[in-house]
Amino acid sequence: MDFQIDWARDRRTGVPEAVLCEGKSPAQLEAVIASAHRAGRRLLFTRLGQTEYAALPEASATLLDYEPLSATAVLGAVADFTRSGVGIVAAGTSDLPVAREAQRTLAFCGHDAPVIADVGVAGLWRLMDRIEEIRRFRVLIGVAGMEGALFSVLSGLVTAPVIAVPTSVGYGVAAGGMTALHAALASCSPGLVVVNIDNGFGAAAAAIKMLAARAEEH
Amino acid sequence: MDFQIDWARDRRTGVPEAVLCEGKSPAQLEAVIASAHRAGRRLLFTRLGQTEYAALPEASATLLDYEPLSATAVLGAVADFTRSGVGIVAAGTSDLPVAREAQRTLAFCGHDAPVIADVGVAGLWRLMDRIEEIRRFRVLIGVAGMEGALFSVLSGLVTAPVIAVPTSVGYGVAAGGMTALHAALASCSPGLVVVNIDNGFGAAAAAIKMLAARAEEH
Amino acid sequence: MDFQIDWARDRRTGVPEAVLCEGKSPAQLEAVIASAHRAGRRLLFTRLGQTEYAALPEASATLLDYEPLSATAVLGAVADFTRSGVGIVAAGTSDLPVAREAQRTLAFCGHDAPVIADVGVAGLWRLMDRIEEIRRFRVLIGVAGMEGALFSVLSGLVTAPVIAVPTSVGYGVAAGGMTALHAALASCSPGLVVVNIDNGFGAAAAAIKMLAARAEEH
Amino acid sequence: MDFQIDWARDRRTGVPEAVLCEGKSPAQLEAVIASAHRAGRRLLFTRLGQTEYAALPEASATLLDYEPLSATAVLGAVADFTRSGVGIVAAGTSDLPVAREAQRTLAFCGHDAPVIADVGVAGLWRLMDRIEEIRRFRVLIGVAGMEGALFSVLSGLVTAPVIAVPTSVGYGVAAGGMTALHAALASCSPGLVVVNIDNGFGAAAAAIKMLAARAEEH
Amino acid sequence: MDFQIDWARDRRTGVPEAVLCEGKSPAQLEAVIASAHRAGRRLLFTRLGQTEYAALPEASATLLDYEPLSATAVLGAVADFTRSGVGIVAAGTSDLPVAREAQRTLAFCGHDAPVIADVGVAGLWRLMDRIEEIRRFRVLIGVAGMEGALFSVLSGLVTAPVIAVPTSVGYGVAAGGMTALHAALASCSPGLVVVNIDNGFGAAAAAIKMLAARAEEH
Amino acid sequence: MDFQIDWARDRRTGVPEAVLCEGKSPAQLEAVIASAHRAGRRLLFTRLGQTEYAALPEASATLLDYEPLSATAVLGAVADFTRSGVGIVAAGTSDLPVAREAQRTLAFCGHDAPVIADVGVAGLWRLMDRIEEIRRFRVLIGVAGMEGALFSVLSGLVTAPVIAVPTSVGYGVAAGGMTALHAALASCSPGLVVVNIDNGFGAAAAAIKMLAARAEEH
Amino acid sequence: MDFQIDWARDRRTGVPEAVLCEGKSPAQLEAVIASAHRAGRRLLFTRLGQTEYAALPEASATLLDYEPLSATAVLGAVADFTRSGVGIVAAGTSDLPVAREAQRTLAFCGHDAPVIADVGVAGLWRLMDRIEEIRRFRVLIGVAGMEGALFSVLSGLVTAPVIAVPTSVGYGVAAGGMTALHAALASCSPGLVVVNIDNGFGAAAAAIKMLAARAEEH
Amino acid sequence: MDFQIDWARDRRTGVPEAVLCEGKSPAQLEAVIASAHRAGRRLLFTRLGQTEYAALPEASATLLDYEPLSATAVLGAVADFTRSGVGIVAAGTSDLPVAREAQRTLAFCGHDAPVIADVGVAGLWRLMDRIEEIRRFRVLIGVAGMEGALFSVLSGLVTAPVIAVPTSVGYGVAAGGMTALHAALASCSPGLVVVNIDNGFGAAAAAIKMLAARAEEH
Repeated sequence: MDFQIDWARDRRTGVPEAVLCEGKSPAQLEAVIASAHRAGRRLLFTRLGQTEYAALPEASATLLDYEPLSATAVLGAVADFTRSGVGIVAAGTSDLPVAREAQRTLAFCGHDAPVIADVGVAGLWRLMDRIEEIRRFRVLIGVAGMEGALFSVLSGLVTAPVIAVPTSVGYGVAAGGMTALHAALASCSPGLVVVNIDNGFGAAAAAIKMLAARAEEH
Repeated sequence: MDFQIDWARDRRTGVPEAVLCEGKSPAQLEAVIASAHRAGRRLLFTRLGQTEYAALPEASATLLDYEPLSATAVLGAVADFTRSGVGIVAAGTSDLPVAREAQRTLAFCGHDAPVIADVGVAGLWRLMDRIEEIRRFRVLIGVAGMEGALFSVLSGLVTAPVIAVPTSVGYGVAAGGMTALHAALASCSPGLVVVNIDNGFGAAAAAIKMLAARAEEH
Repeated sequence: MDFQIDWARDRRTGVPEAVLCEGKSPAQLEAVIASAHRAGRRLLFTRLGQTEYAALPEASATLLDYEPLSATAVLGAVADFTRSGVGIVAAGTSDLPVAREAQRTLAFCGHDAPVIADVGVAGLWRLMDRIEEIRRFRVLIGVAGMEGALFSVLSGLVTAPVIAVPTSVGYGVAAGGMTALHAALASCSPGLVVVNIDNGFGAAAAAIKMLAARAEEH
Repeated sequence: MDFQIDWARDRRTGVPEAVLCEGKSPAQLEAVIASAHRAGRRLLFTRLGQTEYAALPEASATLLDYEPLSATAVLGAVADFTRSGVGIVAAGTSDLPVAREAQRTLAFCGHDAPVIADVGVAGLWRLMDRIEEIRRFRVLIGVAGMEGALFSVLSGLVTAPVIAVPTSVGYGVAAGGMTALHAALASCSPGLVVVNIDNGFGAAAAAIKMLAARAEEH
Repeated sequence: MDFQIDWARDRRTGVPEAVLCEGKSPAQLEAVIASAHRAGRRLLFTRLGQTEYAALPEASATLLDYEPLSATAVLGAVADFTRSGVGIVAAGTSDLPVAREAQRTLAFCGHDAPVIADVGVAGLWRLMDRIEEIRRFRVLIGVAGMEGALFSVLSGLVTAPVIAVPTSVGYGVAAGGMTALHAALASCSPGLVVVNIDNGFGAAAAAIKMLAARAEEH
Repeated sequence: MDFQIDWARDRRTGVPEAVLCEGKSPAQLEAVIASAHRAGRRLLFTRLGQTEYAALPEASATLLDYEPLSATAVLGAVADFTRSGVGIVAAGTSDLPVAREAQRTLAFCGHDAPVIADVGVAGLWRLMDRIEEIRRFRVLIGVAGMEGALFSVLSGLVTAPVIAVPTSVGYGVAAGGMTALHAALASCSPGLVVVNIDNGFGAAAAAIKMLAARAEEH
Repeated sequence: MDFQIDWARDRRTGVPEAVLCEGKSPAQLEAVIASAHRAGRRLLFTRLGQTEYAALPEASATLLDYEPLSATAVLGAVADFTRSGVGIVAAGTSDLPVAREAQRTLAFCGHDAPVIADVGVAGLWRLMDRIEEIRRFRVLIGVAGMEGALFSVLSGLVTAPVIAVPTSVGYGVAAGGMTALHAALASCSPGLVVVNIDNGFGAAAAAIKMLAARAEEH
Repeated sequence: MDFQIDWARDRRTGVPEAVLCEGKSPAQLEAVIASAHRAGRRLLFTRLGQTEYAALPEASATLLDYEPLSATAVLGAVADFTRSGVGIVAAGTSDLPVAREAQRTLAFCGHDAPVIADVGVAGLWRLMDRIEEIRRFRVLIGVAGMEGALFSVLSGLVTAPVIAVPTSVGYGVAAGGMTALHAALASCSPGLVVVNIDNGFGAAAAAIKMLAARAEEH
């Protein structure tokens, strides 16, 4: 039952492997960190809560650059920003942990991607005040919970592809993120694509893949 | 098993009784029409599909002012418009049957309520082009299916109370109207209220009740 | 990633902005309180649990008028009651936190709105004993969990519009409030409108908007 | 793959076997009718739609006492009424097919059980007008769709046990009967029991069993 | 916002009022206990967890006869057993808390009702070994979680009415009790009736009402 | 967009390829039949409704051995029975189409597998009367809809592995087969395995694979 | 209630407006066709079933290039293929209607996008046989119903971004496409993005947007 | 309310009885351990969390061979491995607890069953590297969470029957295991069978039963 890090994934699929920490024991995480450290590899960890981070042996924990807000950690050197073009648009303050997970993943891969926050469409002027800035990005990641109305409005205002990340922010029928997820999928704004609830990492990986795609002119 | 029309409901609750035709047999509907006609009463019928209307005996059918688009029928004299203040805002063409059900209900009660259509927020400029006109109403009824993003945006742009009517328009995760319903309920736009999927009648009844309410100044 | 309070919302939509505390960190809340305090603004906080309140720095906490039952807090001076007309009808003792959230929101806006409690319809006489008192309000907020039968019965007995707030009170199929929510939406009592589960704040905001609406006579 | 009618069920469980016709082919139904007819047995058929009844060979069809409203048929002699004590209370006209299925089942077993209809609680006075009559029954069957508020109110007004039969009447969140079902189960009115959606037959069988139960005094 | 105990419920509906403790604060419970104690009334408390019981002031707690397994408490004198006829059949050890809630409720009302446990139908011989004993009861309460197969089998083996209480025992698709609930409702065993998940109290109340019902012979 | 029959599947996975007809056009089916006929291959078709079968060109239709009850068709020679050991146990008459799909699939592969029907556990004696016969099979396929209680009881009475096929038979909460499916999965009878709703073909394929498996003794 | 075609959408969002025909009446469609024809505009129609197409007046119908398999129609001149780079990978024959909707949408915009079909991963060799061809595309659209396992496998084998289109192909728990949708969203293959069930149009629009995006190197 | 261990189950059904600890109190577990210990019986305990294990009296705890990862315990002597033929294939590290529950159950019954881990199909090469080893088993248990794509791919590559155990690993739409469960059931790979979410014990019991089944050649 040995854990194998798939170092070749980056070459095969264009995005690096990350370790989803949720559901793994401290002993399992420690083994991964040690193995990557020995191999001199950089590695990204997602969904590493503060309690779980605190449960790591100190020797492992000090190897990591840990950020509580996004619950992410990075093993190895910080990447220089060598690329840009992705913008992250977040509806509210409570959506920032997910927005930051996307931002940290992009940074890990050398992408400088700003977060534009507090532009939920229940107060439309907040989005409209910043729309010109938003329109300059090549790919957009939208992050919103509750009813997820941001996705439709944003996607209808820009030419860039929009990746919707529904968040589990909200209560009552919103709780868990299913309403925001379904709203993103049911949007009549064509070209909007969606990832799993709270999956900032996946949105960042998709953005990286999209920036590498390019049509061939005949 | 005799059917009793509740002629006193109007006085007791401020809104007239309507007959929900879905699930009633032609014989049952015929009995209701005959009873109201004998009593000289006006009566509103909702969710009366074209097939069901065609199945009525001709003597009953000719007593009704039937409109297929909204699947509504009126027995008795047309009301004069004596009041206004309600506006109906519909996201798309497919939402018009529900918007018309609301409009016909309001007309039955003497309210002149225009429908402003094709202002879905995936093309935000369509709504913004008409927002000043929309802001003049005292009560607004929003009608939208799919992801229901219209509700949040609309409610955030006006001071009037907005009654959201989610519609069963859409496919995939939208089908049935649950996504639009949940989006309306989960909206962070305060003051938005919601009725059942496709319930244009209920929204109209609520609008009538709202227009009769008024704060007492101390 | 700076937090912007939307001070102009009140003017734009007729209801004040409130801060939904659930999902925000103590540091984020502290920043909001400090910013509002510096600006000399009144501000309402909802869904601020006792644990979260206790986690605030004392300097922030002492600025707030906090009430544990409703999990609400107010920053700034208490409003004088300048308006009335809203009544809050709660089915049971367990529904009081949500009823109080509505009451505190209304009080924040200068509305004196009494709570009439323990009138669940499984013991119908409790509601009937107080129905004349209830009928005097211009707008009613109904608060009930479990099967939510109160909404239909109440709405059928009054001319005022009724805003249903389903609560997450109950267990088994009631847990989470979906049964009360669906019961409110499926009610055949015309004119009943609904907000999200446990959303006392939203019901209060809707009531305020309704009291400002008024039909124009022709 | 031979069909065996369980003639001994009546003795074993106190209720007769009925044939659920839905999902059975005309050939299968014809075989059952012939077998029972040869054996000189009475037999009850439920959920036999008009199309399915019309598809039976005439020789089979003429043996049946068929009623379209309840979609039930009886093979064999009509039973004399030898017992009473069960009352059936139906919220609306659209609930009558289910109410009649219960009534026909009770009649098949010799029980004379009246239907009291159009007493939905959105117009409470309709129920209160007949409550004394309703209170005289030993066992009550409540039949309601939509939000099913009748169940809680009725059960709180009587000492008899109430069997709730939710119906699939309604649209939007009510459609299919799940809201009425959950409302019946989540009711805080103690002693209310529930059967499957549209299961008038099952409610009648339960009522028959209840009337046979009796406490032993010590 | 005063709490009113409905002392007259017993007379009106045949079953006593109980206090559902879940969702009530220690202060609210303390007030109820004090009020009932002052009035010299007996009172049953359900869903009172050990943590919540421990949070009561000692003066209140010592007035109660508390049982942790069923999470019930009784205020006032123990009732003598004056009636019998109800049997409680529980599938497994994990279902005992719910079975005991029913038993304690019946005892509170003077009914001596034995629990027959560990007779789940995956090992059918366990049920068959005790079926003669079970057949002697006038009313049966079945208690089972997971797939709830006990309900169909038990109801098919007895003439007494069976009240199914699905429990939240199980994991995966069983968790929460919805599978057992739906199995009880979908059973083709006629005469089976159902209450909410884990609602031992409701089943006991229904059993008491059933024992009081009796057919009138013509 | 050419259709490729996977002739090598039998060798690779031990079960033959079948053509799921639902969702395929007559033209697509005709092409498959022609291709297989030209290649001299036997082929099994499932979920081929009577309307869809009638829509085939006569040249194609006459090549098939079609059975309406199971909605299956066979192209090519009938197989001799060369193996046995599988028994199919069906709860009710309405479950026979699914039971027959399993039986026809097994026959296509040379397995002689009898169907034992009408042994639903609501009348337990019917199952017990035939249990010795059932115990002689090496692998059992259980077929039941509604509450699916047959699966737990059957699996607890035999040493053979039981493959549960939930069916979409029933109404209300049973409709669609989800209750029977969940009951099979949540059963505490160890060793019970489950396939998709109405998937008689899949159960037969699993049975064939199981009969080929055998433990190695050390 | 006039219908406004949003001719400027192409410029604003990079994708053309399409008319979703489902839920629109023949009269509404006729008006759209006439309006676009008069304006000399090209227009794409989706989800136009054969029955609905046949219900159009002949003057309207003959203006359209209609394809039944994909239920799409094009008004105006066929576009020359001027771009390529998108590949469409479909699991089975039944997924072809959705794959064709994507292909027709891309063709409408001048993209030549081949469909590679019958490569479902239950027979993995079919996909592996064509993987080199698939790897040459810049953007991939995956189309699969049932369990949607194709999405994870495909996305893990290529560097191009993959847009998953779950289809409503399948029965039992697959029916409606929710299982394939959830499988696409829950995939651990990073960079996979998802659109609504059966939304071939949306996937094509997203692919067109992605091909226009491109990272800026620093 | 005495607990009866069913010592004869092994003989009756071919698999031993295990004690599901979840939902049982320490006192109940202690009684079971003591009873089995007195009788000199071996016994398997499942879903015994670390907190629950620590809550056992020391005298009971020391009798058990407890493993935290699988949350299983064994009372009595370790079995010698006398049989083999079952292989356990797990998608990821987080699935190991469930894989180990299966492995421990098989070991309890004398089966030596290796776990092959980290072969999730998002990186297909990991599975293909070990496929020859996997093909040598007579029965396979697949263990996967998230989207459960492993099940379809694995089952399509082998002749052995595959028992799918969906796990509750994942977040968003995957959380709880329903997506993996539905993917396993909806798979078009024929012969795949499924057990409840996280039910490693049940899969092991099914594997044992399958190895004992064998076709009779004619």
